[in-house]
Amino acid sequence: MAQDLRSQEVRNPIDVAEYLFKRLQQVGVESVHGVPGDYNLAALDYINKVGLKWVGNCNELNAVLRTVSLASVSDFRPCMKSSWKVDLPAFEPRYAADGYARVKGISALVTTFGVGELSAVNAIAGAYSEYVPIVHIVGYPSTTSQKNGALLHHTLGNGDFTVFSRMSKEISCAVSMLNHQHEAAVLIDNAIRECYLQSRPVYISLPSDMVEKKIDGDRLNTPLELEYASNDQEAEDYVVDVVLKYLHAAKNPVILVDACAIRHRALKETHALIEKSGIPTFVAPMGKGAVDETLPNYGGVYAGDGSNAGVRERVESSDLVLSIGAIKSDFNTAGFTIRMSQLTTIDFHSYGTKVRYSEYPGVRMNGVLAKVTAKLGKLNIESGPIPNNNIPEKETASSEPTIKHAWFWPRLGQWLQKDDVLITETGTSNFGIWETRFPSGVNAISQVLWGSIGYATGSCQGAALAAQEMNIKRTILFTGDGSFQLTAQEVSTMIRNKLNPIIFVICNKGYTIERLIHGWNDAYNDVQEWKYKDIPAVFGAEPGSVLTYRVKSKEEVEKLFKDEEFSSGETKKMRFVELVMPWDDAPAALIKVAQAAAKNNSAE
Amino acid sequence: MAQDLRSQEVRNPIDVAEYLFKRLQQVGVESVHGVPGDYNLAALDYINKVGLKWVGNCNELNAVLRTVSLASVSDFRPCMKSSWKVDLPAFEPRYAADGYARVKGISALVTTFGVGELSAVNAIAGAYSEYVPIVHIVGYPSTTSQKNGALLHHTLGNGDFTVFSRMSKEISCAVSMLNHQHEAAVLIDNAIRECYLQSRPVYISLPSDMVEKKIDGDRLNTPLELEYASNDQEAEDYVVDVVLKYLHAAKNPVILVDACAIRHRALKETHALIEKSGIPTFVAPMGKGAVDETLPNYGGVYAGDGSNAGVRERVESSDLVLSIGAIKSDFNTAGFTIRMSQLTTIDFHSYGTKVRYSEYPGVRMNGVLAKVTAKLGKLNIESGPIPNNNIPEKETASSEPTIKHAWFWPRLGQWLQKDDVLITETGTSNFGIWETRFPSGVNAISQVLWGSIGYATGSCQGAALAAQEMNIKRTILFTGDGSFQLTAQEVSTMIRNKLNPIIFVICNKGYTIERLIHGWNDAYNDVQEWKYKDIPAVFGAEPGSVLTYRVKSKEEVEKLFKDEEFSSGETKKMRFVELVMPWDDAPAALIKVAQAAAKNNSAE
Ligand SMILES: Cc1ncc(C[n+]2csc(CCOP(=O)(O)OP(=O)(O)O)c2C)c(N)n1
Ligand SMILES: Cc1ncc(C[n+]2csc(CCOP(=O)(O)OP(=O)(O)O)c2C)c(N)n1
Ligand SMILES: [Mg+2]
Ligand SMILES: [Mg+2]
Repeated sequence: MAQDLRSQEVRNPIDVAEYLFKRLQQVGVESVHGVPGDYNLAALDYINKVGLKWVGNCNELNAVLRTVSLASVSDFRPCMKSSWKVDLPAFEPRYAADGYARVKGISALVTTFGVGELSAVNAIAGAYSEYVPIVHIVGYPSTTSQKNGALLHHTLGNGDFTVFSRMSKEISCAVSMLNHQHEAAVLIDNAIRECYLQSRPVYISLPSDMVEKKIDGDRLNTPLELEYASNDQEAEDYVVDVVLKYLHAAKNPVILVDACAIRHRALKETHALIEKSGIPTFVAPMGKGAVDETLPNYGGVYAGDGSNAGVRERVESSDLVLSIGAIKSDFNTAGFTIRMSQLTTIDFHSYGTKVRYSEYPGVRMNGVLAKVTAKLGKLNIESGPIPNNNIPEKETASSEPTIKHAWFWPRLGQWLQKDDVLITETGTSNFGIWETRFPSGVNAISQVLWGSIGYATGSCQGAALAAQEMNIKRTILFTGDGSFQLTAQEVSTMIRNKLNPIIFVICNKGYTIERLIHGWNDAYNDVQEWKYKDIPAVFGAEPGSVLTYRVKSKEEVEKLFKDEEFSSGETKKMRFVELVMPWDDAPAALIKVAQAAAKNNSAE
Repeated sequence: MAQDLRSQEVRNPIDVAEYLFKRLQQVGVESVHGVPGDYNLAALDYINKVGLKWVGNCNELNAVLRTVSLASVSDFRPCMKSSWKVDLPAFEPRYAADGYARVKGISALVTTFGVGELSAVNAIAGAYSEYVPIVHIVGYPSTTSQKNGALLHHTLGNGDFTVFSRMSKEISCAVSMLNHQHEAAVLIDNAIRECYLQSRPVYISLPSDMVEKKIDGDRLNTPLELEYASNDQEAEDYVVDVVLKYLHAAKNPVILVDACAIRHRALKETHALIEKSGIPTFVAPMGKGAVDETLPNYGGVYAGDGSNAGVRERVESSDLVLSIGAIKSDFNTAGFTIRMSQLTTIDFHSYGTKVRYSEYPGVRMNGVLAKVTAKLGKLNIESGPIPNNNIPEKETASSEPTIKHAWFWPRLGQWLQKDDVLITETGTSNFGIWETRFPSGVNAISQVLWGSIGYATGSCQGAALAAQEMNIKRTILFTGDGSFQLTAQEVSTMIRNKLNPIIFVICNKGYTIERLIHGWNDAYNDVQEWKYKDIPAVFGAEPGSVLTYRVKSKEEVEKLFKDEEFSSGETKKMRFVELVMPWDDAPAALIKVAQAAAKNNSAE
C-alpha cells in the first residue's frame, strides 16, 4: 500500500500527536488546557509524554479563557524590562527551557468534537477579536467514521463532519484538517506559524485514528520560521523620513499607545521611542499596562470624554499624535468621543503605516518605529499632565463610609506593587481601572472589545498559573457579582492547581453597567445573591488555605490593604474578598460610556 | 419618507418587539429565558408588558439548556394521557390560556449579540441535533451601526455584522434578520412556524432600533398555520395498504419506538396503535419515556448488546419490526450492535415511510399510523418479555455495602412515581436508566445523541419550572460529579425561582464514562472533589429550604427512599443528594457502548 510505503520511507518516525505537541513545545507552550472527551483521549496521552503539563478545566469556555490569559501574560509583559531584551521569537528549540521561563507567546487548547469545541466558540471569538494566539486542537472522530458519515454522538445526526470547522473558520486565522498522514506535518506547522504571526486563534482537527500515524520526525529539527517578514527597505526608509519630517516640525507631539502595540509585539520599539524621545505618552484603555506608568513622560489614559484629568486637553491640542496600534472601538474611546484630526495623526499598525491621509500598506510598525527612534533629531517637547493616585477631595471630605468607585480605584493604585498581574472584567472594574496609576511592570488584562462577562475569572486562573511559573508574586482579579456567576467554577481549578490569586468580587447587587445603559431598576438586572466567599471551601479548598474577607466600608478597605498577610506576595494562600459597593455607583468613565451606548442602541 | 408613509398606513400599529413576543405567546410560550445585554435590554421591557415571564439565567449556555428542557417537558409528555387528547396545535390564540396549561410545544431565548449568542451555540446545536424547537432571539446593534460598520463591543472588530448569523445558520432551520420594518412581521411568523414544524431552533436578529418600530398589529388576529401538511391521500392509502399487508401476514411483529416519534409529535398515533394492536412494544434508549411502561405489551429497552434481559432475542427474532421515529446513533444502539434486517422492517418517519426497501418520501408517519390503527385486522401476537424492577440476584446476594449500578437503577424504578419528570446526564446515569422500568407518565429527558455534559443540570431547572407550572409534583435529576461542574450555577436559578427538584449528583471521583473508553487511571479523568451538597447554601438558599444528604451504602439509599419528606411531591424544599458510587463501576450497557466507542475511535 502506498501509505505503508510512505511511512517506511520516514527515517525517524514520530506519531502525529507527538509531532504536534513537540511543535507546540518548541514555540513556548508548556501547559495544555482543555476538557477530555472520547475523541481526544488518545491524544491527551502524548501531553505528559512529551513533557507538557495537562490542566483539566471544569468546562471548555473557562479552559479558553484560561488559555487566553496565559498567552496574554506572556505577550503583555511589556513592563518587565528583562523581557524586552529578548529578541522575539525567543523560542526556537535551542532556547526552549530558557525561553519558556521568560516568555510564553502562544498557547494550546484541546477540546472534543462538537460539544467541546462549540463550548469554546465564544472565548475563541474573543481571542480572534482581541488578537490572542491560541492553537485550538479538536479531537475528531476517526477518518473512517467521517468517510462513512457515521451517526455518532456529538454530531448533528446528518453525517456532516465539516459543519463545526466551517463555523470555526469564521473566528480562526487558519484551519488545518489533519485527514491525511502525509499532509499532517505541513498543516500543523502552517497553523502554528499563522497563529503566532497573525496573533489569532487557529483550528486543528485531530481525528482519533490520526493520533498514532507515523510521520517524519526529522522535520522537528528545523525550527518554525516565526520572524515577521521585514519591510521593503526602500519603502520603510521613505516612511521613516516622512514621519521624522512631521515629528521634527511638530510643536507639541504626543504618543498614544493602544492594544495592537501589545498584541502585534511592538512594545520593545514603542518603549524605546518613548524613553529616548521624552514625548508625553498616553494610553488608550485597551493599551493600559503597555507603557511603564512610572516614566516621567507618562501622562495617563486618553479616551475622549472618559480621559484622566488633563489628558483630553493635552492630547487634543497636540499638533502631532503618534498613534501606535490603535483600536478605536466604542468602549475604548468612551463612546467614540475622541477628537483627533487625521491631519495631525500618524498611525502605526501591524499591517501598515498611515501618515495623515497617506497610506503605506505593508510597512509594518516595528521596523519604522525602530528606525524613527534611531534617527531621532531634536524635538519640541511640551510636557503633559502627571497622573497620580490621589483620592479626589470630594471623596476624602465625604463622611459617607461606603466604598465609592471614585475613592476606590486611586486607592487601589497606592496598594498595587511592581509586576502585579491585574485582571478586570467588563463591568464597573474595567472602567474604574482607568483611574488607577500603575507601578512599573503591572500587567493589566481585560477584554474591552469583545467584552464577554465571566472572562476575568477564567482568565485569572491562567494568569495566576503563568505568574507562578514566571515567579511573579501577585495575580489580582476584579470581577463583578454578575460576571462571576458565569465562570465561578474556575476557582475550583485554581484550588486544584494550588494557585494563590487575590480575588475581589464587587458585590453591588447585579448588573450595574447594564442598569446604566437601560433598565435602572428592572429585575432583569438583578442577580441571585451568593455567599461568594464561601465558594472556595465548597470547591474543596483545604481549611486554612484560603483567606476570605467581606469589606463594606472605606475603613475596612484600609485595614485590608494594610494587612500584611493579605497583601503578601509570598503566601501560598488564595485570598477572596467580597468588596461591597453601592448598587447605583459607577466610575465616571463608565457613566459616559453607558450614555453613549444607550444613545447608539436607540439611534434611528 | 416612504417609511413614515408605511407606518401611517398601519391601522393598528404595534411595536416589533411586542409583535414578536405576542406571537410567541400565541404558540404557547409563557416564560422567556436568557441573559441581558445592552443590545437586548430594550426588548426585554416588552416581556412583562405582554404578560410573559422573564427568567434570567446565570449564563447563556444554561439558559438554553433550560429552554430545551421546557420544550422537552411539553413535547415529551407522552404519557400524560390528557395531553394526547389535545389535538396539536392546541395553541391558537383562542386556546392560549387553556393550551398553555397543558402543552408548551416551543420555547424562546433572548441573548445579546456576539458574546451571548455564541455562549449559547453549543446548546443550540444540541437542540438542532435532537429536534427541539427554540426561538433564539438575538439583540443586535442598531441597523445604523450595522450599516456604518461601526467598531462596537461584542464584534470581531472588522465591521462584519453577519458573521455570527452565518455561524448560527449551520444549526438553525431558519434565520430571520429583522433589518427592515416592513419585512419584520413576515420574517417573525416564518421563523416561528419553521421552528415549530421542523422542531428545530431558529434564529431571529432584533436590532436595538427595530424594537419600537411600528408594524401592523391586526396581523396578530390571524393565527399562525401550524398544522403539518397532510399526506397526499392516494399515496397515504397506498402505503397504509402495504403496511397492513405485511402486518397481517406477520407471525410475531414488534413495535420499536424511538426519539423522532416524540420530537415529531406522533405519540398520540403511536400509542393508539400500541394499545389497540397489543403488539409487543420496545423503546430505543432515546425513545425511553415515549411509551407507557405499565402497558401489558411493553417489553423494555432494545439497544442491541445493551438491551434489557430477553429483549434482544425477542426483537431480533421478529419477522416484522414497526420502527417508529428511529435515530440509529452509536449510543442509541449500544455501538451499532442492533441487528434487524431491512427486509423485516417498516420505518415510520416525519419525512416519509420506508417498507422493506420501498421508499415513500413525503408520506409522513402520523397519517399512516392513524389509518393503520383504524384499519387493523386480526394480528398474530407472540408475547415478549415483561420488564420489572427486580434487583438482580447477584446484587441482593452480595454483602458489599457500596451502591452498585446493577443494584441502583432497578431500585430507583421501585421508588419512582407516576408522572415524575426524570433527567439523566451523559455519563453513567444515561445508561443506568435503561435498567429502570418506569411508572406510567414518567417523562424522561436526556441528550443521548448530542451528549454535551452539564446539559442535565441546566435542563433540570427548566423542567422543574415547567413541571411546577403544569402541577407535576416531582422533577428528579441525575448528573455526574464531572458533568455537574460545568453548569452548577443553575442550581442558583432554581433557588431564585423557588423550584424544588430532587437532585442526585453521582459522586464517583471523575469521568467514569471516559475511563471506560480510554485512560482508566489517567489524571485527566479525575475531577476536583467538591462539597456538592453545600452548594445550595452558597448560592443563597434560605436555611431550611433545601434538604441535603450524602448516601454511601445501599442501606442509606433504602433509608432515603423510605424517608417521606425526601420522597414527597408536596414539599416546597429542594432536595440535594450526593450519591456515592465506586469510581470503577458502571452500568452493563455503558461498558458495552464504551468498548464500541474505543474501537471506533481507533479504527483504521
Ligand atoms: C456572555 C455575556 N453575556 C451577557 C453580557 C452582557 N453584559 C455585559 S456587562 C453585564 C453585567 C455585568 O455585571 P457585573 O459583573 O455585576 O458588573 P458590575 O455590576 O460591576 O457592572 C452583562 C450582563 C456579556 N457582556 N457577556
Ligand atoms: C461539553 C462537553 N465536554 C466534554 C465532553 C466529554 N465527556 C463526555 S462524558 C464526560 C465525563 C462525565 O463525567 P461524569 O459526569 O462524572 O459522569 P460519570 O462519572 O457518571 O460517567 C466527558 C468529559 C462532553 N460530552 N461534553
Ligand atoms: Mg455587579
Ligand atoms: Mg463521575
